Amino acid sequence: MSNGKSHFLDLFFYPKSVAVVGASRNPNTGNFRLVSNLVNLKFPGKIYPVNPNAEEIMGLKAYPDLMSIEEDIDLAVVSVPASKTPDIVRDCVAKKVKGVVLVAGGFSDAGSKGRGVQDEMLSLLRENGIRAIGPNASGPINTRNNFVMNLGLVEKLSQGHLSFIFQSGLYVPRLSWFFSGFHLYLSKLIDLANKMDINEVDALEYLAQDEDTKVIAMHLESVAGDARAFMRILKDTTKEKPVIVLKSGRTVAGAKAASSHTGAIIKSSDTIFDVALKQSGAIRVQGLDEFFDLAKIFEYLPPLKKNRIAVASISGGEGVMATDFCHFNGFTMAELSPETHNHFRSFFPPWDIPVNPLDTTPCGQFNPGIDVNSIFLQTLADDPNVDCVAMNLTAPRIEPANLVKLATEVVKKGKHLVMWTMDPSQGREMIEQMESNRIPVYPSVERAIKALSALYRYHSNKVAGI
Amino acid sequence: MSNGKSHFLDLFFYPKSVAVVGASRNPNTGNFRLVSNLVNLKFPGKIYPVNPNAEEIMGLKAYPDLMSIEEDIDLAVVSVPASKTPDIVRDCVAKKVKGVVLVAGGFSDAGSKGRGVQDEMLSLLRENGIRAIGPNASGPINTRNNFVMNLGLVEKLSQGHLSFIFQSGLYVPRLSWFFSGFHLYLSKLIDLANKMDINEVDALEYLAQDEDTKVIAMHLESVAGDARAFMRILKDTTKEKPVIVLKSGRTVAGAKAASSHTGAIIKSSDTIFDVALKQSGAIRVQGLDEFFDLAKIFEYLPPLKKNRIAVASISGGEGVMATDFCHFNGFTMAELSPETHNHFRSFFPPWDIPVNPLDTTPCGQFNPGIDVNSIFLQTLADDPNVDCVAMNLTAPRIEPANLVKLATEVVKKGKHLVMWTMDPSQGREMIEQMESNRIPVYPSVERAIKALSALYRYHSNKVAGI
Repeated sequence: MSNGKSHFLDLFFYPKSVAVVGASRNPNTGNFRLVSNLVNLKFPGKIYPVNPNAEEIMGLKAYPDLMSIEEDIDLAVVSVPASKTPDIVRDCVAKKVKGVVLVAGGFSDAGSKGRGVQDEMLSLLRENGIRAIGPNASGPINTRNNFVMNLGLVEKLSQGHLSFIFQSGLYVPRLSWFFSGFHLYLSKLIDLANKMDINEVDALEYLAQDEDTKVIAMHLESVAGDARAFMRILKDTTKEKPVIVLKSGRTVAGAKAASSHTGAIIKSSDTIFDVALKQSGAIRVQGLDEFFDLAKIFEYLPPLKKNRIAVASISGGEGVMATDFCHFNGFTMAELSPETHNHFRSFFPPWDIPVNPLDTTPCGQFNPGIDVNSIFLQTLADDPNVDCVAMNLTAPRIEPANLVKLATEVVKKGKHLVMWTMDPSQGREMIEQMESNRIPVYPSVERAIKALSALYRYHSNKVAGI
Repeated sequence: MSNGKSHFLDLFFYPKSVAVVGASRNPNTGNFRLVSNLVNLKFPGKIYPVNPNAEEIMGLKAYPDLMSIEEDIDLAVVSVPASKTPDIVRDCVAKKVKGVVLVAGGFSDAGSKGRGVQDEMLSLLRENGIRAIGPNASGPINTRNNFVMNLGLVEKLSQGHLSFIFQSGLYVPRLSWFFSGFHLYLSKLIDLANKMDINEVDALEYLAQDEDTKVIAMHLESVAGDARAFMRILKDTTKEKPVIVLKSGRTVAGAKAASSHTGAIIKSSDTIFDVALKQSGAIRVQGLDEFFDLAKIFEYLPPLKKNRIAVASISGGEGVMATDFCHFNGFTMAELSPETHNHFRSFFPPWDIPVNPLDTTPCGQFNPGIDVNSIFLQTLADDPNVDCVAMNLTAPRIEPANLVKLATEVVKKGKHLVMWTMDPSQGREMIEQMESNRIPVYPSVERAIKALSALYRYHSNKVAGI
């Protein structure tokens, strides 16, 4: 329970006891990792692997079936082939588990026969008051109690305030990268997949009231629940928390593919959805890069309501491009204050005027051995005319520890800071240091500006009451 | 000389003797690397470092000034501060060098006074029949003779057929990444910067007739030469070779920034330029990511004139998104042949229908230990209904050597192949192997499809005579 009030989805994020039906002893399988991730990450609840052929898995006693477990089970994660899933669902009913996650695909995603089987399972579960995620689902994940159901290996979690809703397991092989490569800080993640029972309305409602969730990023192929209720909750939620929406199945071909993916029935055209989405105040993105880029910046940075930006690049040419991007994305190039100008004056070559966009290169050439980026950051941090700073991290001379320290000071002074570097391999360690301080580093200037601009637009629209 | 006919720019790409004025002994400086790159990469011409305080640099005899060099000099690369550059230009005249590259900024990029000095230098050089690149320029680069003028370190070159025209040194710190991280295969590169003398018309004319150049990627802030002549050459060139154009300084703010970057005078609005560009058949891109993505695919892959695409992803959800991107970008989802269908049938779980977009995950779960991507590639290579294949490289079980071999066979059979992976760090070695075989691997599905689509549109427009 994350805000004192209880919600039925608490069961799926804070289970006290979890049975993993189909748990495997073979470390190369997803069904092994369903258990090993929980053990390695020290999930504090009770874990019951169910496998009729095993005595123990990951040091835990294994059970031949659900009924052999003496204790009560909150959640049963069922990862057996589709053909065997209905039998296990009957076991779940017999054992009186409170909730189930069904992992196998092969139901409404596989045509009318599969849909029939799915409907039968749903009836049985409903009759017995058991709520269900899936089928065809992975997850859920909750970083607050290290509860991670994932078929892929997860070595570490990073706690934060970003929560994901997916209608696909596309994140499964990327989950480790979220934490270790891309540096997302998560609260919760739920994969709805076929949405037989629990759907986007439930998930959004839950995350809207979850105090550990400050940003919601939502991937949708269809709206399975009540479309009006969904849009109403979405509208209410976006007043409090940004909701980033990636809707796929937007074309006829894509919708057809979605129907064989999660059995999604696309009820309305993308145009209608788009209009409704705009009215709801949600932030629509077009692809996965943008989805994750925005998820990151909204989690990392506080609200941005002013738009005077200073750009520090390593080349005049990149500065010109950055200026174009800033203009197209609603920023104004900040007029540097006289103090900033005077301070830069002493570092710049005599023929070069320190104007925004700033070019670190001539300044670096004129002051060999000086860490120009640090000087720039320090000076811009104190400029009252500057609301946000975008800086290229690829500089000839950088003192990483110092630059990270200065960057965090910029943020402390209430400025927004985004960085980019074209060749992330050059500065992997510094990127990690920056991002562990919630300073986002993007792989290109256009992605940095675009992400920052989404933040500005969301918060300035809120100010304007749009 | 690259096609039998001589062009005055040959001098800048195939100099027999090069003087580097301002060469430094300090290995941490760009002026050291101007010499060290040439020596380390074994440029076969003669190299004369000029530095009044040095006896030798990188094992080469250093000269106090240009006049002290006894032999004739083809090209003088002048990398001294702006204040000293006019003096060295006079030395160049006295020494009767054939061409000069002026590296320092601080001329037309620094206001009217600088423009005056620049004009004087130009007059003097013109009177003496000496052609000039710059000022404010780096380069040129020619991979055919390892002639690399770059202030940043370049450890290796990769020979290919892509040539760049820049109006900025923004590539300078990225040059090493072109070869070692992003795997571009270059022919030539020229940075025009302030375009005092040699401009985009000269550069385009040269690369248009250069037999080692099959793709031209051009970054522009302004057209300094005759705009009609430029558009005419561009139109003629695009009939033979794709020309990718990244024009910055597109907004008022950006144009202002461009003027203090390279002294560029933006004569016409971006709208007029855009229309002219479209009529020329050039491919306009909006940002650096797209610029390099397209540069890569046009160099890597042969013409693509058909648009039936097969997508193999690691998740149904990503497949749905890929389908949307394919549709938006002019592709048709290929109807797999009965043979392909039958072959896949035996690998897919019974409930899952092998349709395009293909999802490798259920197939992998159903066949533990099998390299599903290899099976997919092999089968799609023989499908007559498939013109191109887009595949996610992040798979649970891959045999890299086998997959690379199969991928090259797909290409040999006349299909186009693009790949993507969300976490490049996972498969760095395999990406290198793929790209050393000219199979492009992008960091996301949207970038892969977008790049392939540019290739298709260029060649299908050519077929249609548009």
